[in-house]
Amino acid sequence: MAHRLGPARTTLKDVAEAAGVAISTASRALADSPVVAEDTKERVRRMAASLGYRPNAQARALQSSRTNTIGVLVPSVINHYFATMVTVIQQVAAENRLLTMIVNTGEDGEAMSVALEQFAEQGVDGVICVPQEDGVDSIVRLHEAGLPIVLIDRELTGCEIPTITSDPEPGMWQAVDVLQAAGAVPIGYLSGPMSTSTGRARLHTFQEACRHAGLTDQPVYRGGYTQEQGLEGAKVLLGRGVKSMFAGDSMMTIGVIEACHDQGLEIGKDIAVVGFDKHPLFELQPSPITVIDQNVSEMAQRAFAALLTTINGSPPTTVREHTTTTLIQRESTLFVGSNND
Amino acid sequence: MAHRLGPARTTLKDVAEAAGVAISTASRALADSPVVAEDTKERVRRMAASLGYRPNAQARALQSSRTNTIGVLVPSVINHYFATMVTVIQQVAAENRLLTMIVNTGEDGEAMSVALEQFAEQGVDGVICVPQEDGVDSIVRLHEAGLPIVLIDRELTGCEIPTITSDPEPGMWQAVDVLQAAGAVPIGYLSGPMSTSTGRARLHTFQEACRHAGLTDQPVYRGGYTQEQGLEGAKVLLGRGVKSMFAGDSMMTIGVIEACHDQGLEIGKDIAVVGFDKHPLFELQPSPITVIDQNVSEMAQRAFAALLTTINGSPPTTVREHTTTTLIQRESTLFVGSNND
Repeated sequence: MAHRLGPARTTLKDVAEAAGVAISTASRALADSPVVAEDTKERVRRMAASLGYRPNAQARALQSSRTNTIGVLVPSVINHYFATMVTVIQQVAAENRLLTMIVNTGEDGEAMSVALEQFAEQGVDGVICVPQEDGVDSIVRLHEAGLPIVLIDRELTGCEIPTITSDPEPGMWQAVDVLQAAGAVPIGYLSGPMSTSTGRARLHTFQEACRHAGLTDQPVYRGGYTQEQGLEGAKVLLGRGVKSMFAGDSMMTIGVIEACHDQGLEIGKDIAVVGFDKHPLFELQPSPITVIDQNVSEMAQRAFAALLTTINGSPPTTVREHTTTTLIQRESTLFVGSNND
Repeated sequence: MAHRLGPARTTLKDVAEAAGVAISTASRALADSPVVAEDTKERVRRMAASLGYRPNAQARALQSSRTNTIGVLVPSVINHYFATMVTVIQQVAAENRLLTMIVNTGEDGEAMSVALEQFAEQGVDGVICVPQEDGVDSIVRLHEAGLPIVLIDRELTGCEIPTITSDPEPGMWQAVDVLQAAGAVPIGYLSGPMSTSTGRARLHTFQEACRHAGLTDQPVYRGGYTQEQGLEGAKVLLGRGVKSMFAGDSMMTIGVIEACHDQGLEIGKDIAVVGFDKHPLFELQPSPITVIDQNVSEMAQRAFAALLTTINGSPPTTVREHTTTTLIQRESTLFVGSNND
C-alpha cells in the first residue's frame, strides 16, 4: 500500500505544512491544477524539492487518474442519521472540489460489493463506506489493491482500514442512570442486528450499564434498524410491562413513538423513552424525546479528513477513531408514572 | 437523437411485444446477456429478424458501452420526500440489474451541472434528474448529445425531455375546500421558491382555488424548501392572524409544526395545518397532519420506466406525465378554534 511505506519518509503533509497550505492544495499544486495560484504552486514545488519529497509510483498512478469524485455507501438515506452523514460528507468534499456519489446499499452485502466494484472501476479517488459484514471480502480486496477506503459508523474486526465510529458508552451509561433515577424500570431495550458492530456494541454497553447500576435481567428485543422492527419490538416490550423503552437506533426510535401513539400512551408520563440521534420528529413531540447524540457531523468530517489523507498518499494518522456520544435530556425521561419496585 | 428517428420504424418495444417479453429482457436478449434464458434469446432474435429490427448506430454505441449504472440527482436527501424518491428508483433499477448513484445537488445549478457532466463522462446508461433552472444548459446539451435523461418532480419550460411531475390541483383544491368548510380562514400559504416550477404551480393553484372558493387576498409567505423557511414563514403568518397554515412542501411543513410547538399552539384546535407528503413526523403528532400526497413512489417508478424506454432506444411514449395528488385528511384540519368571520 502506497500510504503504508512508513511515516519516516517525507510526506505530502510535510510539504503542505512547510508551504503553509492545505494538503489538498499541495496535492493540486504538484499536479499543476489550474485552480491553484501560480505563486502557490511555485512555493509548494520549492518545498517539495528542498524536503526531498518523492511521491511513490502507486500514489502517482492514483493521482494521474484522479476523477475528483468520491463514493459514499450507506445502508439507507431514508434513515435521517445516514442522510445527515452523506450530506455533511458531500459538503466538506465540495469544499475540496470533490463530487460525492452516494449509493444506498439497503443493508445488503452483495449490493454493497457491486457498488464498491463499480466505484473502483470508474476510478473514484476514494470511498467512505458503512460496511456490511457479509461484503467484507470486496472491501478488503479493494483496500489491498490500493483504493483509498475509510469505514464509518460500523467497524470490521481484524482489518486495518481506517475506521470512524461513535463510542456508545458515555451516552448509554448516562441514559441508564437517568432512567433508573426516574424509577422508569424495568427498561426494555430494542437492540439492533447482531450482524452489525453497532448492534453488538450497543447491546453489550446497555447490559454492562445495567449490571453496574444493579439492574439485572432487563428485557431485550433483538430487532433490526427499521421503523417496523421498532414498532414490533415496542409492542413486545410493552406487553412485558416495561416502564421505559430504550431504542438502539434512529429508525427503531420512530417505531417506539409509533407504538406509544397507537396505544395512547403519553410519553414522559405513562412511559419513559430514550432514542438515538437528532431528528426533527424527536424534538417536535409533546414531550420531546431524550436521545443519544452520536455527533454524526463530526464523524462525517473526520471520515472525510481521513479519506483525504489517504487519497493524498499519506499514512492514516490512526486506524480507529471514535466520536463520543452525549445524552441530550428532554421531557421524555421526566417519568412520573407509577413504579413497580 | 437515436430515439427520435421516428416511431414508424420497428422499435425494440415492437420486438419485445412480439416476443411477449419486457423491453429490458428483449434488450438483454439481443445483447446476449447471460441472465436471459437461451430459448427466450432465440425467440427474441427470431422476432427481431422477422420484423426487420435494426438498432441504429447511436443506440448500438450506447449499448456497447453500457455500465449498468444510472445517475439520480436530487436537491437533498435530508428531505424525506426525495429520500423516498431515490430509494424507490434504486429498488426498481436494482430489479433491472442497474446500480443507482445518487448526487445531492443542494438546490445549486452549478453543482447539478458538474454532477451531470461527471455522470456523462463515466458513461452512465441514463440519468433521472430534479432539474435546477439555472443549470438548464447542461441538461439540454447532454440530452441533445444523446444521454438518456428523464426529469422528475420539476419541469423545464420549452424543452422536450420526458418529465414526470405531480399535478397539484386535485389535492390542493380539496385542501382549500376543507379549510374553508372548517372555518379556518384566513388561510396562510407558505410558498416554495419562484425559481422552481413546483413553487410557481402550487402558488398559482392555491390562489386559483381560493378565488374559486370566494376567498380573496389570503396571506402568502414566499419562502424556500427548508425547515428554517417554514419556521420563519409560520411566524410571519401567525403574526398576521391566520387561522390555518398551508405549507407548500415537506420541509416547510416541518417548520410549521416547529412554530406551533414553539408557540404552544395546539394543531387542530388553535390552528389548522395542511402540509405536503407522507412523513412519519406528520402522522406521529397528537393531531396527525392532513397532507397532500404526491404519490412519490408512482412518480419514481414511472420516471424509471420512461428512462428504461429511452435507454433501450425507443421514443418516449409521452413527453409530460403527471401523477395525481390526493388529500389525506387527518385531525389537523378538524379545526374547532374561534372564527373571525
